[in-house]
Amino acid sequence: MSDDPRAAGNRDAHTGPPAGLRRRQLLGGAAIGAGILGAGAGGFGLAARRDGTAEPPPEDAYGTATVPFHGKHQAGILTTGQAHATLLALDLRPGTGRDDLRRMMRLLSQDAARLTQGEVPLADSEPELALVPARLTVTFGFGPGLVDTAGQAPPSWLAALPGFGVDRLDPAYCDGDLLIEVAADDPVTVAHAVRMLLKDARAFTGIRWTQSGFRRARGTEPGGTTMRNLFGQIDGTVNPAPGSEDFDQLVWCREGWLADGTSLVIRRIHMDLEGWDRLDRPGREQSVGRTLGNGAPLTGGNEHDEPDFEALNAQGFTVIPPFAHIRRARSENPRERIVRRSYNYDDPPPAGQISDSGMIFMSCQADVDRQFVPIQRRLDELDLLNQWTTPVGSAVFAVPPGCGADGYIGETLLE
Amino acid sequence: MSDDPRAAGNRDAHTGPPAGLRRRQLLGGAAIGAGILGAGAGGFGLAARRDGTAEPPPEDAYGTATVPFHGKHQAGILTTGQAHATLLALDLRPGTGRDDLRRMMRLLSQDAARLTQGEVPLADSEPELALVPARLTVTFGFGPGLVDTAGQAPPSWLAALPGFGVDRLDPAYCDGDLLIEVAADDPVTVAHAVRMLLKDARAFTGIRWTQSGFRRARGTEPGGTTMRNLFGQIDGTVNPAPGSEDFDQLVWCREGWLADGTSLVIRRIHMDLEGWDRLDRPGREQSVGRTLGNGAPLTGGNEHDEPDFEALNAQGFTVIPPFAHIRRARSENPRERIVRRSYNYDDPPPAGQISDSGMIFMSCQADVDRQFVPIQRRLDELDLLNQWTTPVGSAVFAVPPGCGADGYIGETLLE
Repeated sequence: MSDDPRAAGNRDAHTGPPAGLRRRQLLGGAAIGAGILGAGAGGFGLAARRDGTAEPPPEDAYGTATVPFHGKHQAGILTTGQAHATLLALDLRPGTGRDDLRRMMRLLSQDAARLTQGEVPLADSEPELALVPARLTVTFGFGPGLVDTAGQAPPSWLAALPGFGVDRLDPAYCDGDLLIEVAADDPVTVAHAVRMLLKDARAFTGIRWTQSGFRRARGTEPGGTTMRNLFGQIDGTVNPAPGSEDFDQLVWCREGWLADGTSLVIRRIHMDLEGWDRLDRPGREQSVGRTLGNGAPLTGGNEHDEPDFEALNAQGFTVIPPFAHIRRARSENPRERIVRRSYNYDDPPPAGQISDSGMIFMSCQADVDRQFVPIQRRLDELDLLNQWTTPVGSAVFAVPPGCGADGYIGETLLE
Repeated sequence: MSDDPRAAGNRDAHTGPPAGLRRRQLLGGAAIGAGILGAGAGGFGLAARRDGTAEPPPEDAYGTATVPFHGKHQAGILTTGQAHATLLALDLRPGTGRDDLRRMMRLLSQDAARLTQGEVPLADSEPELALVPARLTVTFGFGPGLVDTAGQAPPSWLAALPGFGVDRLDPAYCDGDLLIEVAADDPVTVAHAVRMLLKDARAFTGIRWTQSGFRRARGTEPGGTTMRNLFGQIDGTVNPAPGSEDFDQLVWCREGWLADGTSLVIRRIHMDLEGWDRLDRPGREQSVGRTLGNGAPLTGGNEHDEPDFEALNAQGFTVIPPFAHIRRARSENPRERIVRRSYNYDDPPPAGQISDSGMIFMSCQADVDRQFVPIQRRLDELDLLNQWTTPVGSAVFAVPPGCGADGYIGETLLE
């Protein structure tokens, strides 16, 4: 697998067959359902055309962009967050065995590979909906039950997280045997891919929970903008750059069937927008330790400035308060870090309320117990933000490595 | 109002202050909450730059695009459908009177005007979330209860629709006193605007229902592409072009407080994707009367070809079957037409299912009884599509005309 030419990772590639070609082939009828709509070389990038001499990208540029499915790592980890994501947690049906898992993961991998490249899966009955990949990625994660069914002992961290005092968990958003994360810049693409993959999996699984989230649409903000959550906070500033040595150290597992894989912690965090509304702007900035305007630490001027946790104000108190989220999240041990990847959710409000909003927090780390848990313990003990945020769902999955074109996700566990 | 320079309508204008300017002003802090982030002239259009000499549009072009709020007609009717829409149906609190309605509509109009231009409403506690208008439109509709409270007799068509045999209506998606439709190309923009407007309205109203829908993201398909629903069908082909004489005749009311307004029918239509899956491609095309590939009528080659309802096949039957949706929807009376404007929905599936999908059907017409009802009666009597589609929600609203910069939506009813 390390000979795979794409082993450097599947990070935001923008290649794919021109949409016009694919459409013409499809509308001719012959290619429908045949999956022959192969790869082309239609790379583009808005920034690359800034010299003013080339034509602007086509109007469907965001639709034709693809992220490679095959590679050393699964897609969706190094990928810059797409605008839409749906998470599916499935439970294995009683009696599902190791051979079934192999068959299911082969089928899922095959169809995910096609969908992500804008190709039509064999059994797709709405093939026209498959033609806009829009950076679609499909990422698979295994819960402890699936690993157990495969006949392996799960890694020690692959289990429900220890209970935290702030938790108010609803079992309807917890745990699961198989995670499928479907993300793309287009909501129709996500809906169609979700349905196709659920059709593949339904002989072996039932749905445990689903969650859908969003970020800013593609093309609405300059590239490289850190997302804001529905509190208006810039969120994810300290994430290391995908592909950097730092990122690789923090994220990828090194051993066994999980080598080049990672782990995914998913926490559904309800945000009390009503309560947050009653807090003034300085209060909000103190609770986080960053300015709301540009996300700079209270001791700095720019988002990516390093916070100075020792700096004192005129009254002799630290500028970044002891209870501030960024102080509590920080460890002196540089290994105690995670890579965050979150989405907003905004569901129909319950009776008498005007919102039911929050965040689908996701983090990747090589070892949940050594990286995520100590951070969360500190936040659980003291973090002013806890006053307006409540974890209502929690799940941990092992994310196996990627696969080559002839392989499938999970082969390192199931072969 | 007819002197308004924008009286020609608020159709897909792409002007707005450059995002950089707005951000700089805001980040300076002085402008926060002051709503002084006024209009500029940053018009752009992807197509206009196709000559290859100009720079491509900025990366945040879809975010800075705005649709005028003020004008002869409300925004959101002539506007090409945005990627995301949330519909809010509110009920007036007991004791709300005509003066309250005036106050509420002034406040809502003022904040909607600001939000749609990427300006920060006065009471916005997350001002940074207001800076990406992304073609935001806010459209208000009045139910019979609100018109009655205003002391006027509602038009005869402003009432619950007559019952249809296909209906399986859930009161949780029916009726309402005030409709607020919030649509934009960015889902964060929609979520933020919805919350701001609900804060304005909550002293006077409670939520009756909300529905959220989506289409293809901006920049994923060539301009002018007709949307596809989750059955994979091209949907909306026969809509007249916004601003055409035909459109004007069909859509705008002529008299009284509703002159230059229209009516909005909202039908939540559940689509049985499982059943649809069991139907083969020819069967699907017969049930609609159009090809799935490009939406051409079965007697034509291109989407916009006029169907030939008399054409016979080799067996002597009409090529477009008697039960086909497009035949049943068509009237010989050219006034019996509507302008459709629909969104897909895809909610978490109920236990044991893999989808809960459908369409939020919306249509505009000058007179519901003369235009929408006869079409729906014919479809109710016979339309093969009924086998896989079930109306589960239904509401009718009067959409008052637009207003000038000093006015407010509803002034023709409330002054």
